[in-house]
Amino acid sequence: MGRIVVDVMLKPEILDPQGQAVRSALPRLGLTDFTDVRQGKRFVLSVDGEVTPEHLARAREAAETLLSNPVIEDVVDVHELVHDEPEQAPLTGEGAR
Amino acid sequence: MGRIVVDVMLKPEILDPQGQAVRSALPRLGLTDFTDVRQGKRFVLSVDGEVTPEHLARAREAAETLLSNPVIEDVVDVHELVHDEPEQAPLTGEGAR
Repeated sequence: MGRIVVDVMLKPEILDPQGQAVRSALPRLGLTDFTDVRQGKRFVLSVDGEVTPEHLARAREAAETLLSNPVIEDVVDVHELVHDEPEQAPLTGEGAR
Repeated sequence: MGRIVVDVMLKPEILDPQGQAVRSALPRLGLTDFTDVRQGKRFVLSVDGEVTPEHLARAREAAETLLSNPVIEDVVDVHELVHDEPEQAPLTGEGAR
């Protein structure tokens, strides 16, 4: 089974209240390094078999038409999820490496 | 200015109604390749200057404590956003390459 990642972020000129809320909460946890936070969406699309260029083209079409609102959002990346990537293998908690 | 990406996805065993809604809508757009869709969150944290290992450690701490709910979500990736990555440079629309 192949998987394709689509990353969608608000356009830089669009206000991001969720990101700002996170930004404001970080210093309360003692984390003062971060000057800005933006929150976006990440989709993982599964396909049968290997990911082909046609799958990627259709994922891009889905990204433009359904997964993002082109008035306020940018599709910043569409790529195959390679098996070496630590996806779904949590970095923390019970299943962590 | 350095940037760090934190990717958070629902744990595989947790139902994802948003992803299912997207999954159900795709065939209506003629996109029938996709067998499953999962929707997660993507955060971009900015820091002053270069991203250091300490920044990444603190981003991971933020990911675990604030950006994800460890009961239902996994932090699947924390990495520096390298300038070669097409981030914030939209793939589509006015600013597209």
